[in-house]
Amino acid sequence: MSWPPLREELRGIAPYGAPQLDVPVQLNVNENPYGPSPRVVADIATAVAEAAGTLHRYPDREFTELRAALADYLGHDVSPEQVWAANGSNEIMLQLLQAFGGPGRTALSFAPTYSMYPEYARDAMTTWVAGRRESDFSLDLDAARALVREHRPSVVLLPSPNNPTGTALPAEAVTALCEETGDGVVVVDEAYGEFRRAGTPSALELLPRHRNLVVTRTMSKAFALAGARLGYLAAAPEICDAIRVVRLPYHLSAITQATALAALRHAPELLGRVEELRGRRDETVRWLREQGLEVADSDANFVLFGRFADRHAVWQGLVDRGVLVRETGPDGWLRVSIGTAEEMTAFTDALTEVMEEQR
Amino acid sequence: MSWPPLREELRGIAPYGAPQLDVPVQLNVNENPYGPSPRVVADIATAVAEAAGTLHRYPDREFTELRAALADYLGHDVSPEQVWAANGSNEIMLQLLQAFGGPGRTALSFAPTYSMYPEYARDAMTTWVAGRRESDFSLDLDAARALVREHRPSVVLLPSPNNPTGTALPAEAVTALCEETGDGVVVVDEAYGEFRRAGTPSALELLPRHRNLVVTRTMSKAFALAGARLGYLAAAPEICDAIRVVRLPYHLSAITQATALAALRHAPELLGRVEELRGRRDETVRWLREQGLEVADSDANFVLFGRFADRHAVWQGLVDRGVLVRETGPDGWLRVSIGTAEEMTAFTDALTEVMEEQR
Repeated sequence: MSWPPLREELRGIAPYGAPQLDVPVQLNVNENPYGPSPRVVADIATAVAEAAGTLHRYPDREFTELRAALADYLGHDVSPEQVWAANGSNEIMLQLLQAFGGPGRTALSFAPTYSMYPEYARDAMTTWVAGRRESDFSLDLDAARALVREHRPSVVLLPSPNNPTGTALPAEAVTALCEETGDGVVVVDEAYGEFRRAGTPSALELLPRHRNLVVTRTMSKAFALAGARLGYLAAAPEICDAIRVVRLPYHLSAITQATALAALRHAPELLGRVEELRGRRDETVRWLREQGLEVADSDANFVLFGRFADRHAVWQGLVDRGVLVRETGPDGWLRVSIGTAEEMTAFTDALTEVMEEQR
Repeated sequence: MSWPPLREELRGIAPYGAPQLDVPVQLNVNENPYGPSPRVVADIATAVAEAAGTLHRYPDREFTELRAALADYLGHDVSPEQVWAANGSNEIMLQLLQAFGGPGRTALSFAPTYSMYPEYARDAMTTWVAGRRESDFSLDLDAARALVREHRPSVVLLPSPNNPTGTALPAEAVTALCEETGDGVVVVDEAYGEFRRAGTPSALELLPRHRNLVVTRTMSKAFALAGARLGYLAAAPEICDAIRVVRLPYHLSAITQATALAALRHAPELLGRVEELRGRRDETVRWLREQGLEVADSDANFVLFGRFADRHAVWQGLVDRGVLVRETGPDGWLRVSIGTAEEMTAFTDALTEVMEEQR
C-alpha cells in the first residue's frame, strides 16, 4: 500500500461533477429553472418544523408515508410495497448494484449514456460493459439482445429518455430486453420521464408484465427538487426486499421524508411547469434545426445539438456571453438544459453570435 | 443466477435494524431523550425555509459552510479541509471502506463491537477480521498489535467509546495502533465521544501526530439529531480528497446542510443536556452495581449490564412493564440507553420487579 491507501483503480481519478462556474445563465446540469413557489416553500417549512420536534429520534426506517405518497403519484396500480426511495437516484443506483451486481457480475448499458453509470458500477466492484447506440442514439434491438446474450449481465441500465441524448426507448425495446435478461434486472432510468413527448410511453406500464423490471425516477427534475435529493423506484416487492439488505439503516432522514411529502402534495402545480418546459424544449429543437444544426430528438428537459468542429470553442464562446451549457456526449456535440424563456433567449442570442463568429 | 438475483453472500440475511416495538419507555437505540427546544426547532424551520427557495438547484457539492462550522465545533485546530460529512456515520463508514477497503483488502476491529461494522465491510466487499476484547472489554494492546501485523488491514475500526460496551480507548492504544497500521487508516469512531467521562481524551488530540488517523463523529447523539442523519469525520486533507472520488455527487442535501448548520448554532444548549445525561449515566452504573450486577465502565450514553442466565427473559420482563432495552452484546448482557429521569426510574423499577420475580 502507498499513501493514502486509495484502491489502485481509483488513483488519479477526479471526483465526478460538472464544473461550477459563476455565470448568469446556468443551463448545464438539467435543473428545473423554476424555484418552488412561496406556497410550496411555506408548506415545506411547516412540514420540516413539525418533523424537527422529534429529530432526537431515528426516522421511520421504512418511510411508510412517503412510499404510499410516491405510489399514489406514480399511479399505474403501483403499490407502496413496490416503491423504494433513497438520497437521489445516485443512491438508488448504488443500492441496486450493491444488491444485484458485485465482483464477478456485469452491469451493461449502451453509450453514449449517463457518465455516472460506470462510476456506480466501479463503486460496487461490478464489471462494466457498454454497447453502442446507433448514429441517431436509438438502440439496434438485435445487437442489444446479442450483447445481453454474450455478457449475461445481472443489471442492464436503460435510461429513457437517455442522458445526454434525450432519446426515449420504445416499449418493445424494454420488453425485449427484459425477456433477454432473464433473471437479471433491467433498470429503466426515467429521471426525466415526466418530460417525455405525447405518445412516448412510460415503462411503468410494463411493470405487471416483467418481474425483473425496475423503473427509477427522481424528484430533482420535474419536481424541481434537486437540492432535496430524493430518488425512487418502482419494481416487484422482492426487489425492494433485496435492496433492504444492503441499504444503510435510516438512510432517509426525517427532514428529507417531510420535504418530499410536502412537495408531492403540490404535484399539480409543479407539473404545470413541466408542461411549459416541454413546449420550450420543442421550440428549442426547432430553432436549433433552423440554424442548420444536427439535433437529437428529445423527450427530456435538455437538448443535444451539434456538430461543431471545435465544440470547446463554442462552449467557451457561450460562457464568454454568460451562458453555461455542458460539454458532454460524443465529440462535436453540446447539451443545453431548458431554462426560462429569458434564459433560452440569452442562449439563442449567444449561440447566434458564436456561430457567426466561427463562420 | 436465481430470482431475485441477490448476491450469494446476501441471501437469507435480514435487513439491519433494532426491533421497533410500541412501548412507552424506549431505551434501546441510544437516542438522546431530549427533543430540540422550541428555539432550535424554530431556527431549523427558518433555515430550511430559506434553503427551500432554491431547492430546484443542486446543493453545494462541497458543503463549504457546514465543513467550516463542524471544524469550528471540533476545535483542536481542525481546519475545514480536514472535515468531511455524509448522511449519518453509516455513510461515512461506507465511503471510508469504498475508498480504502475493497476486494483483496481487510478491515479489522475487536469484538464485541458495533454490529454494523461487518455489514459495512460486506457492502464494500472487504474482508472482515475481528479480534477479541478482554473480559472487561478493554484491548490487550500487544495482542491487538500482533493481529494488525498478521492481517495488514487497510482499515482498522476502533470505536471509542465502544458500542455496546461503552469502553473508551486510552491515547496510548490509538497511538500504538496508528503506528502499527502504517499506510492503512485507523478510524476512531467517536459517535458517543461527547459523553466521555472527565479525564478520557478525544482522539482529536492525536490528529497532528498521525496522518493515518480518522476521527468520526455524529450529530445523532450529543446533538439529539438522529432524525437528520449527519455524520462527519476529521482527518488529513488527503483522506478527505480520497473520499471525494467515491462519494456520490451532491450526497448531502441542501436541507440537511441547513438543518445541521442551524443545530450547530445551538451547540451550547444541546451540549448542556449532555452534561445532565453523563451524570445520570454514572448514577445508573452505580445503581446497577448496587443490585449486585456486573456493569461495564461507560463513557457513552448507554450502559451494558448483566450477566443474566436468561437475558431474553429479563428483556421480555422489561418489555412487559413498558420498558424497551436492547438485547445485544455478549451472552447474558443487556444494554440500556440513558433517558430522562422519569424513564430511568421506570427502568430501575421494572428491573427490580423482574429480578425479584426471577429469584
